[in-house]
Amino acid sequence: MDPSAVTVDLDRRRRCGFPEVVFGPGKTNEQLREVVSTLLRHYERVLATRLTPSQAASLLAAFPDGRHNEVARTFRVDARVESGGREPSPGPSLRGRGKTAAAHVAVITAGTGDLPVAEEVRETLDWMGVRVTMIHDVGVAGPHRLPARLAEFQDADAIVVIAGMEGALPSVVAGYVACPVIGVPTSVGYGANFGGISALLSMLNSCANNVAVVNIDAGFKAAFMAGLIATRSYRTP
Amino acid sequence: MDPSAVTVDLDRRRRCGFPEVVFGPGKTNEQLREVVSTLLRHYERVLATRLTPSQAASLLAAFPDGRHNEVARTFRVDARVESGGREPSPGPSLRGRGKTAAAHVAVITAGTGDLPVAEEVRETLDWMGVRVTMIHDVGVAGPHRLPARLAEFQDADAIVVIAGMEGALPSVVAGYVACPVIGVPTSVGYGANFGGISALLSMLNSCANNVAVVNIDAGFKAAFMAGLIATRSYRTP
Amino acid sequence: MDPSAVTVDLDRRRRCGFPEVVFGPGKTNEQLREVVSTLLRHYERVLATRLTPSQAASLLAAFPDGRHNEVARTFRVDARVESGGREPSPGPSLRGRGKTAAAHVAVITAGTGDLPVAEEVRETLDWMGVRVTMIHDVGVAGPHRLPARLAEFQDADAIVVIAGMEGALPSVVAGYVACPVIGVPTSVGYGANFGGISALLSMLNSCANNVAVVNIDAGFKAAFMAGLIATRSYRTP
Amino acid sequence: MDPSAVTVDLDRRRRCGFPEVVFGPGKTNEQLREVVSTLLRHYERVLATRLTPSQAASLLAAFPDGRHNEVARTFRVDARVESGGREPSPGPSLRGRGKTAAAHVAVITAGTGDLPVAEEVRETLDWMGVRVTMIHDVGVAGPHRLPARLAEFQDADAIVVIAGMEGALPSVVAGYVACPVIGVPTSVGYGANFGGISALLSMLNSCANNVAVVNIDAGFKAAFMAGLIATRSYRTP
Amino acid sequence: MDPSAVTVDLDRRRRCGFPEVVFGPGKTNEQLREVVSTLLRHYERVLATRLTPSQAASLLAAFPDGRHNEVARTFRVDARVESGGREPSPGPSLRGRGKTAAAHVAVITAGTGDLPVAEEVRETLDWMGVRVTMIHDVGVAGPHRLPARLAEFQDADAIVVIAGMEGALPSVVAGYVACPVIGVPTSVGYGANFGGISALLSMLNSCANNVAVVNIDAGFKAAFMAGLIATRSYRTP
Amino acid sequence: MDPSAVTVDLDRRRRCGFPEVVFGPGKTNEQLREVVSTLLRHYERVLATRLTPSQAASLLAAFPDGRHNEVARTFRVDARVESGGREPSPGPSLRGRGKTAAAHVAVITAGTGDLPVAEEVRETLDWMGVRVTMIHDVGVAGPHRLPARLAEFQDADAIVVIAGMEGALPSVVAGYVACPVIGVPTSVGYGANFGGISALLSMLNSCANNVAVVNIDAGFKAAFMAGLIATRSYRTP
Amino acid sequence: MDPSAVTVDLDRRRRCGFPEVVFGPGKTNEQLREVVSTLLRHYERVLATRLTPSQAASLLAAFPDGRHNEVARTFRVDARVESGGREPSPGPSLRGRGKTAAAHVAVITAGTGDLPVAEEVRETLDWMGVRVTMIHDVGVAGPHRLPARLAEFQDADAIVVIAGMEGALPSVVAGYVACPVIGVPTSVGYGANFGGISALLSMLNSCANNVAVVNIDAGFKAAFMAGLIATRSYRTP
Amino acid sequence: MDPSAVTVDLDRRRRCGFPEVVFGPGKTNEQLREVVSTLLRHYERVLATRLTPSQAASLLAAFPDGRHNEVARTFRVDARVESGGREPSPGPSLRGRGKTAAAHVAVITAGTGDLPVAEEVRETLDWMGVRVTMIHDVGVAGPHRLPARLAEFQDADAIVVIAGMEGALPSVVAGYVACPVIGVPTSVGYGANFGGISALLSMLNSCANNVAVVNIDAGFKAAFMAGLIATRSYRTP
Repeated sequence: MDPSAVTVDLDRRRRCGFPEVVFGPGKTNEQLREVVSTLLRHYERVLATRLTPSQAASLLAAFPDGRHNEVARTFRVDARVESGGREPSPGPSLRGRGKTAAAHVAVITAGTGDLPVAEEVRETLDWMGVRVTMIHDVGVAGPHRLPARLAEFQDADAIVVIAGMEGALPSVVAGYVACPVIGVPTSVGYGANFGGISALLSMLNSCANNVAVVNIDAGFKAAFMAGLIATRSYRTP
Repeated sequence: MDPSAVTVDLDRRRRCGFPEVVFGPGKTNEQLREVVSTLLRHYERVLATRLTPSQAASLLAAFPDGRHNEVARTFRVDARVESGGREPSPGPSLRGRGKTAAAHVAVITAGTGDLPVAEEVRETLDWMGVRVTMIHDVGVAGPHRLPARLAEFQDADAIVVIAGMEGALPSVVAGYVACPVIGVPTSVGYGANFGGISALLSMLNSCANNVAVVNIDAGFKAAFMAGLIATRSYRTP
Repeated sequence: MDPSAVTVDLDRRRRCGFPEVVFGPGKTNEQLREVVSTLLRHYERVLATRLTPSQAASLLAAFPDGRHNEVARTFRVDARVESGGREPSPGPSLRGRGKTAAAHVAVITAGTGDLPVAEEVRETLDWMGVRVTMIHDVGVAGPHRLPARLAEFQDADAIVVIAGMEGALPSVVAGYVACPVIGVPTSVGYGANFGGISALLSMLNSCANNVAVVNIDAGFKAAFMAGLIATRSYRTP
Repeated sequence: MDPSAVTVDLDRRRRCGFPEVVFGPGKTNEQLREVVSTLLRHYERVLATRLTPSQAASLLAAFPDGRHNEVARTFRVDARVESGGREPSPGPSLRGRGKTAAAHVAVITAGTGDLPVAEEVRETLDWMGVRVTMIHDVGVAGPHRLPARLAEFQDADAIVVIAGMEGALPSVVAGYVACPVIGVPTSVGYGANFGGISALLSMLNSCANNVAVVNIDAGFKAAFMAGLIATRSYRTP
Repeated sequence: MDPSAVTVDLDRRRRCGFPEVVFGPGKTNEQLREVVSTLLRHYERVLATRLTPSQAASLLAAFPDGRHNEVARTFRVDARVESGGREPSPGPSLRGRGKTAAAHVAVITAGTGDLPVAEEVRETLDWMGVRVTMIHDVGVAGPHRLPARLAEFQDADAIVVIAGMEGALPSVVAGYVACPVIGVPTSVGYGANFGGISALLSMLNSCANNVAVVNIDAGFKAAFMAGLIATRSYRTP
Repeated sequence: MDPSAVTVDLDRRRRCGFPEVVFGPGKTNEQLREVVSTLLRHYERVLATRLTPSQAASLLAAFPDGRHNEVARTFRVDARVESGGREPSPGPSLRGRGKTAAAHVAVITAGTGDLPVAEEVRETLDWMGVRVTMIHDVGVAGPHRLPARLAEFQDADAIVVIAGMEGALPSVVAGYVACPVIGVPTSVGYGANFGGISALLSMLNSCANNVAVVNIDAGFKAAFMAGLIATRSYRTP
Repeated sequence: MDPSAVTVDLDRRRRCGFPEVVFGPGKTNEQLREVVSTLLRHYERVLATRLTPSQAASLLAAFPDGRHNEVARTFRVDARVESGGREPSPGPSLRGRGKTAAAHVAVITAGTGDLPVAEEVRETLDWMGVRVTMIHDVGVAGPHRLPARLAEFQDADAIVVIAGMEGALPSVVAGYVACPVIGVPTSVGYGANFGGISALLSMLNSCANNVAVVNIDAGFKAAFMAGLIATRSYRTP
Repeated sequence: MDPSAVTVDLDRRRRCGFPEVVFGPGKTNEQLREVVSTLLRHYERVLATRLTPSQAASLLAAFPDGRHNEVARTFRVDARVESGGREPSPGPSLRGRGKTAAAHVAVITAGTGDLPVAEEVRETLDWMGVRVTMIHDVGVAGPHRLPARLAEFQDADAIVVIAGMEGALPSVVAGYVACPVIGVPTSVGYGANFGGISALLSMLNSCANNVAVVNIDAGFKAAFMAGLIATRSYRTP
């Protein structure tokens, strides 16, 4: 594998608010270790996603202070303390305001099978410095379960709703709140779920106004969007 | 058009409990009038579905005591009173038991655009002699609307739930009741609803146990299934 | 895996007539054992579906009086005899009437490959306390086979018809009977069957009035719908 | 429109047994008249298919002894009597054997909406000199109708079966006979029939051995295949 | 048409921050006028979307101080000045802070054909009280056009990017900014664009982190999401 | 696995001209051996298709005089010589006429990857007693290859054309001959061949008149159709 | 319609070798006239494509020396003669070398219905200054037609092959030549051609090495690619 | 496996400019070695593509001077030096002109996962004798990366652009250059990328004029097209 084939965008924190995130698929163990080293040398907080067990083991061996979440398939390492100069990530949008703790995203799943995606969401939001509330197994077929937990999510700055099968949960959640909802269709289900298409189409056709959608099983992307929305709510304009 | 191309199944009431229903598409006005005449001569109660305005006008001119529901696109004529012998339809399964009035189906729609399908359901159930409760515009994005009307539908013998867009309503309704739910996906919506596929897939992938599905916009078929279920609940075994 | 991610709905028998059924996919062995224990503690009759061999072996080790149907991929344990108070499941809708034995569902398959789904249907109906008649290998290409067995299914309260490939059998069965028919498309076939889509579309487009459809390979759901319909036929109104 | 854009293949009768057939779509009235004239000048029997009303009227004005079948959307003109030399079509494969009358194709439709395709089949077979038996409205939901007419089709040399919706009829017909069956899926139906895809997939996935399929609504092509098969059965080897 | 079939959710401003928006399709002129009257009586600012010319003309006749945007297919009427009590919409989330003017959304289109969707976005954001910057015709095939206008959109609180054909523009825009981007795929294009599927899939598969997607041609929904995000950025926490 | 789930149709030779063929998928080794034994006891010539290596090994062990074609995935055993009474298969349509040898089918493949399907075709035709000519690797991109071999296939009674990728070969072959052509799309190819859909659609949309199509990779069915057509050409009417 | 929504890229000839081409859909008559005027003022040769009859009439009225090809739906106006300075388009790549006439593209169609796309190709190549050879109606079902005209296309610098239905022609053409072939799938056909998908998939899966593909019905784009390839063959390196 | 099933087209260099390329899938190790030997005996330069590791190992054992690129899955062997007569490949189009070195193709990838396809492109172009420039990891979400490398690709004779996910890169590249661009969609991505369909549709719907497309992951075909275009640019007319 050509080593010149991978480049790290070290300017991204300045331009987009957060450093580059490492996408595992298609990278060799050597490439992954090199990318993580480069980011750490530049004082970035590292998040790698969609890792195979082999990739994760290789990273853990190289960076023993990192954290591997097996369910989420993620690996994280905190930024090195810098003796001077540039501040560690996540970056300037939150810098110097101590407001990160206030940013709050609720993560709601329809069923047990949605947990791996939910864990990827949690790891991402934690990496962004955003507070997370997890609410599990409140799918629409048990209609009493969601309103019973309304107090936990109604004041969130943004909500990530994760559902497979008929993917109806984002529409229902959206009807209870005024904040933006990001729907993540999952490939959970069988037969005519077509690997997540059924849930994806449900969320795209939601009759609720405040629902936008990301790719099937795209926990990282949903978390990133929700995290951006939540942290912007606490910016000093 | 070859007149021999249409035949009327006059044995159906004996075999299947209800007389044949006339499906409008592809039939000439002459064929439709002939089929209706034949059924009436055999003392059947007539229901014709999916009629064009021209077909309906032609039938109304020929059978002025019939009833044309423009929204439902249906036409009905009551069976002639028979001086003796065979009893008029809907047929033997309810004969001599005076229980028809007890059979009860609830019809629930998600939005205004689902009304034409709901009207076809109502006409069909009325033709079957089943009591109908209509509950409109209780889609999932307004989550308080459905439980507010629980008393109207929780004791129904069967429920027809009609929804386009994300088609999530049958799953939610099913979670409140113990009776069978028949979902009708509609072509209401735009873009990635793909003419009703989004709602169809949602209903097929429902996480509720008591939901079965019919074709897109198939109000008649859903009503027939629900009517069968409801009337069987009151049979003398 | 977060243990708080699975919750058991112990109110379901009151609300929906039957206790919660355990869906295997995505659950750890530990979660499965915990859910089954909880249900048994509450005197529910347990049914778990779509189990992997490993999940089934784990359950069998923990509950040696359970029954594992390898073909159906199900596991069942009878409810504990209760010394007093609440009656064991399946629940109130059949309580105190001794009519369960009368409820009768016929299960008809098109070919040998449909057997696993048929076995899941049988286990579910047996769990519901409904009498089952199995009729195998009567696909439409041997047109004499189905009418030869008419006496076995024509008086059923509901019929589950299971077919892959062209999925034509439900339409044919429905033409012989007056009861509701639930079609289960299976993924049996090859090439342009697209994993069951061909059979699914056939059943959705059935020209018979009394056919509704469930998801591809969804034996449990079809059985549950048919069982609901059949047991309601023997309710004391 | 460039007149050089249309060319007539006058060698086709020698090579393929029958002269070229004129496909209407995309041709101007002038082009159509020119093609028909050319064929007649070469003593071919003319068949034009899929004509718009305007195209048909233009041809009828130019060739008043032709026959326009409005339902089939076809136009035909008999070959001119030739004073000597080359024999009129349909061609050498049947020449000098007086056996054409023996070739027999049955045409079976599922419902009224399939009539236009059936008429195109009839016109084509008639143009080929093959005897046709039409059997209408024997779809699978009325299972007694097809065997009642078995005597009319069981000795055919080939059978064309035309069906929309679930497209199950070819499989059932094929189970009764030993001759080849050509299935024609039609676009008749609504919703999840997807313009004929449901019927097409059913026929492709037929569990019968003796079924092959042509394009949706392709009456001409099915007739041509069946006519080829039937006339070959009476060749002098 | 049953008048009881339409209900107005007058509690929505309290629950979700903005009053109900009127969705035109499937509503009669009478129903539309009634809904608008009801909203105005309750001091709500009215927005109706996806109106036919006939619906718009009917509304304009009834509410001559309203504004009909023909390209956007929208109709708006300002809330009546209330003599006391409840404040007019858009509602409490912006109340008493005079910050609405600060909320800023950029709307970027790829080509001329995307204008109708862009106009619907503009009307919606204007109705929400959000400042809008329109940037037109900067599709990716002219790569110099977008960076030339970076100053106009890089400080927006959220960006709506509208594109048909290959739908690549949201990914490119997202690479320049740190704010959330909402992609709207449009049905602009031909052939293998499949009515907007090509653009929809592009946006769902965007390699940018900060892109979420709404339904094809769903200008209103994208604007609503972007407006929510932008106004929340100026909330007093 | 329920042994009653498989039944052998011993009447098929009388009704359809050839005995039942054994379809391997979904059958246990025990079921397969039992079906083969039953057929042999009734003096039928046995053909089993789509066997796994394990199924084939099991059959070969039980019937050592059988023939396993690994590429075709078939197993065959000749009918036992009968001391009197009923004649061995393939059956009455060819009985007492000694004409089988005359029936001739050409089998043409586009590329090397189509060989497994071609071998299934060969085994089936051989089982039917039909002479076969195999012509390999004459795909359309080498346009000189097919006409170079015209003499080998132009007098066939029917032709089976097997092609993956763009599936264009049947159209080209059909232009050279007057006999029926059966196209078999194969799953050979990659990317946008979608497991054979590209070839299937090509064959369904063939501009040739004399092409009908079977399912993707359905070598057996194509062979059976072609064999039927070819043997009928030599019947004594 | 906002006039600022259309901008003309006057730098394109310098950057890409040819001036901007005007895409008609979605533009008002006023916008079209303004764009054409602007291009002419800058001494560009104008080509507008996919015009409605109303758009074309409006342009013809404004620019009476233009040429409207009704079949191709194009409009062209030659560049104004410039008294000095910048040379008229098509541009620098061919400037001062007098070699344009040598560049040669063959355009080959499968059937009559492909003519409108072929005419768009011809207009585009003519606008580029490239010599065109048109070869019509040589689809694969008449396999003798194409080689009969080999001399006309075998020395072309590039070939555009236009075909609907099974779209097999590009593969066959490519096998005869050493130059690049651009395939244009057309929407010509019916049923399972799915508006051109069948032809598109055929061309993408071509077993020939020298075939690339453009969008369905995309005559302009194919012509532009072929024209680029052909003119580059005559560049002075 | 029938050895006669594979034939080598030894005339291809004369007809199409380059010798036949060996397509690995479906060939046995024996067949592959035989084909390579045959080509070498005829003094052709050999390229084999899409090899499994086992196929590659078998070839390397037989031809130890060959080169196996594991990432590209290719195998190459140089043509034997010929003592006289016919010149080694790649063939006559470049013969005797020493211009091959001038032909230049740029290969641009969007991300790391596209490398295997890019390596297949590089091997193919190298085999054709064309100079290659590789530019990696310049996807559209980092919009500054591509223009930074403009000098490396703007003078190429043709460009191959390789991208998965949203497949937007070819449109952007095409906007910077005047040469033809060949887009290769890859299956890189997840969820709604549908194995490369998202990228394929993006490239087919590109708003750039100078983009044509090949099959998903079809690196060889794109390279061959680009190589043809590039070498033709240096022909002596």
